[in-house]
Amino acid sequence: MIPVKWTDESVEMLDQRLLPNEEKWLKLRSFNEVADGIKDMVVRGAPAIGVSAAYGVALGVKNFVGTNVVDLEDEFDYICEVMGKTRPTAVNLFWAIDRMKRTFQKAKTENKSVSEIKQILIEDAKAIHEEDIESQRLIAKFGGELIEDNSTVLTHCNAGALATGGVWGTALGVIRGAVNQGKKISVIADETRPYLQGARLTAWELLKDDIPVTLITDSMSGHMMQKGKVQAVVVGADRIAANGDTANKIGTYMVAVLAKANNIPFYVAAPLSTIDLKCPTGEQIPIEERNIREITHIQDIQLAPEGISVSNFAFDVTPNDLVNAIITEKGVARAPFTESLHKMFEE
Amino acid sequence: MIPVKWTDESVEMLDQRLLPNEEKWLKLRSFNEVADGIKDMVVRGAPAIGVSAAYGVALGVKNFVGTNVVDLEDEFDYICEVMGKTRPTAVNLFWAIDRMKRTFQKAKTENKSVSEIKQILIEDAKAIHEEDIESQRLIAKFGGELIEDNSTVLTHCNAGALATGGVWGTALGVIRGAVNQGKKISVIADETRPYLQGARLTAWELLKDDIPVTLITDSMSGHMMQKGKVQAVVVGADRIAANGDTANKIGTYMVAVLAKANNIPFYVAAPLSTIDLKCPTGEQIPIEERNIREITHIQDIQLAPEGISVSNFAFDVTPNDLVNAIITEKGVARAPFTESLHKMFEE
Repeated sequence: MIPVKWTDESVEMLDQRLLPNEEKWLKLRSFNEVADGIKDMVVRGAPAIGVSAAYGVALGVKNFVGTNVVDLEDEFDYICEVMGKTRPTAVNLFWAIDRMKRTFQKAKTENKSVSEIKQILIEDAKAIHEEDIESQRLIAKFGGELIEDNSTVLTHCNAGALATGGVWGTALGVIRGAVNQGKKISVIADETRPYLQGARLTAWELLKDDIPVTLITDSMSGHMMQKGKVQAVVVGADRIAANGDTANKIGTYMVAVLAKANNIPFYVAAPLSTIDLKCPTGEQIPIEERNIREITHIQDIQLAPEGISVSNFAFDVTPNDLVNAIITEKGVARAPFTESLHKMFEE
Repeated sequence: MIPVKWTDESVEMLDQRLLPNEEKWLKLRSFNEVADGIKDMVVRGAPAIGVSAAYGVALGVKNFVGTNVVDLEDEFDYICEVMGKTRPTAVNLFWAIDRMKRTFQKAKTENKSVSEIKQILIEDAKAIHEEDIESQRLIAKFGGELIEDNSTVLTHCNAGALATGGVWGTALGVIRGAVNQGKKISVIADETRPYLQGARLTAWELLKDDIPVTLITDSMSGHMMQKGKVQAVVVGADRIAANGDTANKIGTYMVAVLAKANNIPFYVAAPLSTIDLKCPTGEQIPIEERNIREITHIQDIQLAPEGISVSNFAFDVTPNDLVNAIITEKGVARAPFTESLHKMFEE
């Protein structure tokens, strides 16, 4: 399962808005289409957004018709700006754009031609994608070791292959890693209102993999924990501050508080590209607010009275003291996170 | 707003399944139709279920065509049995049926005729309804005093006029009581998946009353508390055990844990008919499981993949140590609840 692909003419994305009812691939033929695809949640999940943004920049540069590097740089800067305005919370977006910017600068310094720079940026986007998949594989390995045999893992939202460059996923990578290590694991997926990533995507991915999964509403997670039906919680992340505070899908803080109250370990699984060392604490992470129609309607069915006031925060921040471990491709970080996360980048 | 009414030929119920999009009243002309109305959630909320069950029994008895009291008693027992099988968690159902049974026995002992017994049971059902409304008024008064001026109150599910015999409601009664006492109160209503009583009913009731209300998803309540946007939580109850453990809509336990973690008072508002002194702790409260289609579909729209395993517990139990006070028509009970709740019944 790889949800985003590079062809030489387009970026292809599996349209996650239509899952689980329809598996449709979109061919996005311009960087603007890729940016809209990210903004409109054709693809979502921090690592997948990072990979998609890299491909979007590569596609935009590839479509540039001029012949001199100065003009290309103008266009490149504009493309990066458009791409950076799609989703404010996921730091992988900015991480991928920054990496492409460094790659561009290096190529420019080395006096590469327009066509050479195009090729270098395409290769870098592909490398970002490949490295992302390799990161998930390592997260799956390290995280799988933390999960006990015969346990049930609760996960919130979708941090699966669909949310990354593919194959493993982050939180679902940990679950797949445990299963790969021969452990008997079942999963409780909460539906994750308003966008239903748990009901639509996590359930779909795990059904495909024959990993036993039970769907619940978000409000049922506490009851399942209270009844002893959950042995660990694993979630992904959209941005991790330098102190371990973790922004993730709205409701993650709630699950973390409930896990703590019920003595259940709470794990965050994310590649280093999700860790933002320039962001000291969760307070500085911008929280995206989305269209209220996501809450008031399901397709054309109106769920709430006309004219109701609605808040639709897409993410929340889980303070580091509720996080038992952060699982990365470099291994498992534990408190104090300010030290352990910094160390990850030094190794 | 009175959601259930007695006419001499029928029990009328506002069809809460169609709100907020349509206000349609159903005329239920037999006790079986009333039982189905309760089971199918035309009306819901523990006090409203109690009132409806009393009316259902009265209607069934009224429709009895025989002439002797022994046959009437057989029919009465059967009606009570059918009515008792509708919703297992709400104790008001059993409370109302038991009261009707005592009324029947008293009338029988006093050698009343079939037509006299019919009239006595109808009068008792009406009295149950009137007493319920009076209870809400007192809950509103006592509860309103606990809410501070200029505060925002979060409520889960719908414990409004729609959930009771009408006019005030329990949790919304407390809010209306505070507003009546001249306080400036705003409300955060969570949508309450899967049945969306918050989005559909609480939002609708409060909009009608011009009380400012903001709708959020269930998973957003923690974020709102964490951000200091909630000063108190008030919920209703489906059954309160003798020790104060409280069964209420699934997700209530979650809200209570989050309130505790954020030092926000958590109040339960319910009439004495919701308190089950015969039930020592929350462990003994039966938790209804409902059809999984409530989670997998919204009307005909499929939200989750075909064949997914689903749990749909309709209620959960909040342990008494998370409850700051239980607000009843006899006043406010605080810990230790085993003593304070017993005392309510003695006064």
